[in-house]
Amino acid sequence: MFLDIYDVIVVGGGHAGIEAASASSNMGSQTLLITTNLQTIGKMSCNPAVGGIAKGQIIREIDALGGFSGMIADSSTIQFRMLNKSKGPAMWSPRAQCDRKLFSYYWKYFLEKNSKLDLYQDTVTSLIIEGGKVKGVQTIFGLKIKGKSVILTNGTFLNGKIYIGKKEINGGRIAEQEVRGITEQLTKNFGFKFGRMKTGTSPRVDGRSLIYEKMKSQNGDKDPKRFSFFYNPKKLKQQKKCYITYTTQKVHDLIRDNFSHSPIYTGSIQGISPRYCPSIEEKVFRFSDKKEHTIFVEPEGWNTVEVYVNGFSTSFPEKIQYQSLKLVPGFEKVKILKPGYAIEYDYFPPEQLKVTLESKIIENLFFAGQINGTTGYEEAAAQGLMAGINVHLKIHKKEPFLLKRNQAYIGVLIDDLVTKGTKEPYRMFTSRAEYRMLLRQDNADERLTHIGYSIGLISEKKMRMLDQKKSKIEKCMSLFQNINFDPKTINPILNAKKSTPICHDKKIGTILSRSEIDIQDIISLPLLMEEIKKNDFSQEILEQVSIRIKYKGYIDREKENAKKLLKLENLKIPNNFDYKSIKSLSSEAKEKLDYYRPISLAQASRISGISPSDLSVLLIHMGR
Amino acid sequence: MFLDIYDVIVVGGGHAGIEAASASSNMGSQTLLITTNLQTIGKMSCNPAVGGIAKGQIIREIDALGGFSGMIADSSTIQFRMLNKSKGPAMWSPRAQCDRKLFSYYWKYFLEKNSKLDLYQDTVTSLIIEGGKVKGVQTIFGLKIKGKSVILTNGTFLNGKIYIGKKEINGGRIAEQEVRGITEQLTKNFGFKFGRMKTGTSPRVDGRSLIYEKMKSQNGDKDPKRFSFFYNPKKLKQQKKCYITYTTQKVHDLIRDNFSHSPIYTGSIQGISPRYCPSIEEKVFRFSDKKEHTIFVEPEGWNTVEVYVNGFSTSFPEKIQYQSLKLVPGFEKVKILKPGYAIEYDYFPPEQLKVTLESKIIENLFFAGQINGTTGYEEAAAQGLMAGINVHLKIHKKEPFLLKRNQAYIGVLIDDLVTKGTKEPYRMFTSRAEYRMLLRQDNADERLTHIGYSIGLISEKKMRMLDQKKSKIEKCMSLFQNINFDPKTINPILNAKKSTPICHDKKIGTILSRSEIDIQDIISLPLLMEEIKKNDFSQEILEQVSIRIKYKGYIDREKENAKKLLKLENLKIPNNFDYKSIKSLSSEAKEKLDYYRPISLAQASRISGISPSDLSVLLIHMGR
Repeated sequence: MFLDIYDVIVVGGGHAGIEAASASSNMGSQTLLITTNLQTIGKMSCNPAVGGIAKGQIIREIDALGGFSGMIADSSTIQFRMLNKSKGPAMWSPRAQCDRKLFSYYWKYFLEKNSKLDLYQDTVTSLIIEGGKVKGVQTIFGLKIKGKSVILTNGTFLNGKIYIGKKEINGGRIAEQEVRGITEQLTKNFGFKFGRMKTGTSPRVDGRSLIYEKMKSQNGDKDPKRFSFFYNPKKLKQQKKCYITYTTQKVHDLIRDNFSHSPIYTGSIQGISPRYCPSIEEKVFRFSDKKEHTIFVEPEGWNTVEVYVNGFSTSFPEKIQYQSLKLVPGFEKVKILKPGYAIEYDYFPPEQLKVTLESKIIENLFFAGQINGTTGYEEAAAQGLMAGINVHLKIHKKEPFLLKRNQAYIGVLIDDLVTKGTKEPYRMFTSRAEYRMLLRQDNADERLTHIGYSIGLISEKKMRMLDQKKSKIEKCMSLFQNINFDPKTINPILNAKKSTPICHDKKIGTILSRSEIDIQDIISLPLLMEEIKKNDFSQEILEQVSIRIKYKGYIDREKENAKKLLKLENLKIPNNFDYKSIKSLSSEAKEKLDYYRPISLAQASRISGISPSDLSVLLIHMGR
Repeated sequence: MFLDIYDVIVVGGGHAGIEAASASSNMGSQTLLITTNLQTIGKMSCNPAVGGIAKGQIIREIDALGGFSGMIADSSTIQFRMLNKSKGPAMWSPRAQCDRKLFSYYWKYFLEKNSKLDLYQDTVTSLIIEGGKVKGVQTIFGLKIKGKSVILTNGTFLNGKIYIGKKEINGGRIAEQEVRGITEQLTKNFGFKFGRMKTGTSPRVDGRSLIYEKMKSQNGDKDPKRFSFFYNPKKLKQQKKCYITYTTQKVHDLIRDNFSHSPIYTGSIQGISPRYCPSIEEKVFRFSDKKEHTIFVEPEGWNTVEVYVNGFSTSFPEKIQYQSLKLVPGFEKVKILKPGYAIEYDYFPPEQLKVTLESKIIENLFFAGQINGTTGYEEAAAQGLMAGINVHLKIHKKEPFLLKRNQAYIGVLIDDLVTKGTKEPYRMFTSRAEYRMLLRQDNADERLTHIGYSIGLISEKKMRMLDQKKSKIEKCMSLFQNINFDPKTINPILNAKKSTPICHDKKIGTILSRSEIDIQDIISLPLLMEEIKKNDFSQEILEQVSIRIKYKGYIDREKENAKKLLKLENLKIPNNFDYKSIKSLSSEAKEKLDYYRPISLAQASRISGISPSDLSVLLIHMGR
């Protein structure tokens, strides 16, 4: 409409769409973000939080690659916590409660600063496709917009249907219209497979009606960190409190008595729901022996009485939502502001995508976010970023950008999706990563910033920030490996920590490698303190060095394993490889390999049903 | 749901609904505001401005009565101007450009501070009515909520249909679902009359794409005022600029060539559109001799590139919106963010209401805002406030609260609506008021604050603020009527202003009553300055005194006329008066009086078709 032809058209303004549009335009592609409602850009549809276990790692990776989610979460944080601090550093996961309105406000604010990005409010109902290539989009009002490429990020909007009790109404989110036409076109005219998934959200309640004295308060970290390695909004001086309470047997009894009122049990919802984020009625049904389920009571922002009841997702009729919630300790006088609901929507099984998130069927058509069968803001944002990067590279005829499983959770996410597909909403966990000691939240910058820089999403200035940090870490490492503690200095501390005292001088690093000794225990020793001051080592640097020293064994082992895998990863399979002509492959392998079209032998090995002997056959046929 | 039974249920969260809910709850009624989307509370659906000619007066009246619109406009103002300053004070009209997001944010913030008010997100699709009385509402998800009374403020949502070009989609605003069921129930089951109206809105464009050098800039006032008499948010130090440009013959030609693409001319829209706020295509059609139409380019907030194109409302297809807008000087490179559109919706002709805005058909059912056939945020807010006040008084069995035509624009508005009905979207003008010298924006506090206080919406503190102001005005008046200027002091000024010099001492008041002499001309005379300083007279006080002295003749005359009318107003007609039995009434008069059921002889006199002889007959039958 405004340009003759856009380089990239991004359909949708949720977490996937905004990262995609931001990435492609920041790389230099003339981009259009088109969405039904510009007021809901960056809307958090579910809980008002970013990060968490494995998800926090993803946000840091997005930040290191030059995406915006971390920066915007930081700008709108009302409480920050590093989860799993009592476990090893592979498990540490940053998580921020956010002000829902501010989060959305800052996204729009930052997107509007981008001169290569146009925004337009309208609903795309079909794609313009010619000769197997996408050529643009057409809107509900009949407008045609030309584009060299299109990224679909429709979230829960494709044929969305909302359920509360036995009632169902059409909609993509509550009070927002669903989108029709795209699924129909892609499946009927182009043979795309699609499926139905279901997700749900919790009631929002009036914080003034809660009795917080009956709950456990959950404060933010005393020294709150940030997601972004590079962006520093003003320090979080104040934080909002969250609260924890638990369901009781009474709650479960009432829920059990009312199963017949839930659309999930009456069979009206057919979509598959997220296994790891079940509704309260599913929890009561599936875990019938559990005496209680945790409820996280999360404020929705700095200046609102709205509170999110995390852990109580439900599609019961409103009366039963109310009756059951009232039985939860602290909720005796609850006033609901917005009932919970379930939503069912179309998704496109992601094994239909290349590792770049481009469709295997239609050229230059990319998919990102919930439309690929995932759940979670972070998973969506990561796909958006990767689709945005790859769409730019593709139309500029450059090599695709891939992340390996040992490089990033984002690599794990996308490899899982395109290699295995997903039948239920896919969520990231640390357990999905083979090399989680490598994929830590604290080293995402070292892992990925140089890549972000090489593709043009990370500025010189940020690279310099990282280089400075790296050289400080090295300086500190070398000091720790060279400076000795003498027994007189260190033994009192070792004794206090029930650690074996030393007889001869030992390097700081050696002492620190003991699991019972924390950097905080020795930091105040004059010898060390002097060096720290002289070299201006921050807490962050000390923590990095400490992790490297303490977990060296684990890290080295994972690096070794990753190297082995890399060999398989480097064995690329041509895209047009003719599996069917290879007689010695099992017929299951032929069919699956032909369908998934893995790019490497490593990827082939991860497809379910591909055996080691199939892999040997392939190796031979590739001339190895 | 949360209470066994609410005193008041307000359906809708627009300008009418929020003032209504705020008023009834602040008066002490347990109130529920229920709306499809709590995120869109206080949303400005059309231009981002409050006030203007006659409308600014309404906002000040709302403020004086204890409503919130003025205060919230003040909190979100990005530019303030007093319109018509070159005309007489009856025409002065305050107007504020507002930050669209902040306006909505502050409304929610203030509503949430009210402990008597519950908010709930759901869509009301029918009313519970028993024995001619409303008893509650039922929602789209089947929830029943009991209430002693209901106020319907559905805006453009009832069977709303959106038009862009030849396409029509259902919706209450763009990207928001329409509401079905209420019109059907009220018309089919209870004999309500309904009609269709149409309105439209302008495209929003990307401010970065405009060439402001080609436009005329329009700055805010140097000394920006505020709407609220009582609330003082921090002083407006910065203001945003607006711009003015004009359509050209080229624009008109293109529009004329494309009439066949407009839904208004192809006959698909049947609703009646606002005469005084026509779309650009209607303007070109109806005023074909005009060489240009003014376009006001209004920023949408402090931190956004969005700009509202006031004066360019359109329902053309997006391409034609774009092509025609591009021809407007300064818009050559325009990028549209949101296309304009037309919307058609149900309204209930307001002569079906009592002067309290209660339905004549269903007891305790009130109507306010666009559902009554009005247009404008201010008109809606005023009705909301009046409905909110009267619903509280009604269910507490107190006397209704009415405003007379000589008391307030709000009185004129409601009297016009219920006495004359409206066939096209009703908008307030100063010309609709008989006593506009009395109904000034500057004296709304003096006119109405004591009433707001007596009904419980104005605090003691605010009353004291007004009392202080009043006594200062009196003090100043008395000084001006007692202190003399001698010829030597004042004649140089009179000569400079070409005003006849004086030969003997004259009172300040006498000098000031000359139309060519402004208070600013004499303010710096030491005699006056000393008194002003001593008594701490503010600019506002001096302006008040100046108006009273200068316009005394006009004001007194209008007061006299108003007194005469008051006699007729005081001749009340019983609600069950049997017009049909009076043989000497014309049959037209019988029919209309029986239908409209005026509450007084004055109101009867304003019904079209009621002749002076009909009034005489009524007078006789009422025993006068």
